Amino acid sequence: MITKKVDHIGIVVKNAEERLKLYRDFLGLKVTHVEELPERGIKVYFVKIGETRFELLEPMSENSEISGFLEKKGEGIHHIAVNVEGIEESVSLALEKGFKPLSSEPKTGAGGTRVLFLHPKTTGGVLLELVEGEHE
Amino acid sequence: MITKKVDHIGIVVKNAEERLKLYRDFLGLKVTHVEELPERGIKVYFVKIGETRFELLEPMSENSEISGFLEKKGEGIHHIAVNVEGIEESVSLALEKGFKPLSSEPKTGAGGTRVLFLHPKTTGGVLLELVEGEHE
Repeated sequence: MITKKVDHIGIVVKNAEERLKLYRDFLGLKVTHVEELPERGIKVYFVKIGETRFELLEPMSENSEISGFLEKKGEGIHHIAVNVEGIEESVSLALEKGFKPLSSEPKTGAGGTRVLFLHPKTTGGVLLELVEGEHE
Repeated sequence: MITKKVDHIGIVVKNAEERLKLYRDFLGLKVTHVEELPERGIKVYFVKIGETRFELLEPMSENSEISGFLEKKGEGIHHIAVNVEGIEESVSLALEKGFKPLSSEPKTGAGGTRVLFLHPKTTGGVLLELVEGEHE
C-alpha cells in the first residue's frame, strides 16, 4: 500500500454557514461541493485547500451519524482521510500491525471510491480513513 | 491574507516511536525531521505526506505544554496549521470576523516563520494555527 496525500480533514460543525465564516470568509477558501446524504443524516461541504480539502459535516437531524460525536465532544476535528493505492491489502496489513479496521473489507464510498476506517482506540485517538480513488 | 495549503496537522502522542508504527510503518510515510524543544517540554517528529506533514508532539516531561491536553483529552489531533501570505493583517482580520487570536500579534516561530493561533472556542472547536514562511 502506498500513501499519496491527505484526501480531506473531516470537521463536525453544528451549522456550516456559521463555520464557513472561518474557512471561506476569513481564510478565503472555496466551497467546491455541497451534498446532502440523508441516509447518513448529514450534509457535507467540501472546502478546497491546496491539494486537500476540509470536509464540514453538518447534522440534518438528531439521529445523524455525527450526533453522538457532537453531544459527547462538541464541534471539532472528526477524522483524517488519506489517499492510498492498494487499499485492498489494507485490512490484512492493518491487522498485522495491530490496527483495528471498522469493516472486514474496504467499502464503496462516494464516487466509486473504496474506503476503510481504522478504530481510533488502536491508532492513538485518530479516526483514520483510507481512501482509494478521487471523488468530489 | 491568502491561504495556500495545510502546513501540518499537529497530533499529540504519548510515545512517538509507538505511533510511528501507524504513520511510518503502516502508511509508509517518511520522518523528515525530529527536534527536541526543551523550553516547551516537547519533542516533535515531522512526517511528510504530499505537500503537508503530520507533526507528532511527544511530551518530554510532566510539565510540557501538551501535558494538560493529554490528561484531559488523551492522545489525538491537537491543531491544524495552514500556510498563509499576509499574516501581519491576520489579527485585525480575525477580530473583525469574531475569532480570538491567542496573541496580540503574530509570533516568530521555528525557522523564522511567523505564527498566530486562533482560540478553538471561537472557531468551532478547531485550534487553528496560521503560519507564514516555510520551516522544517
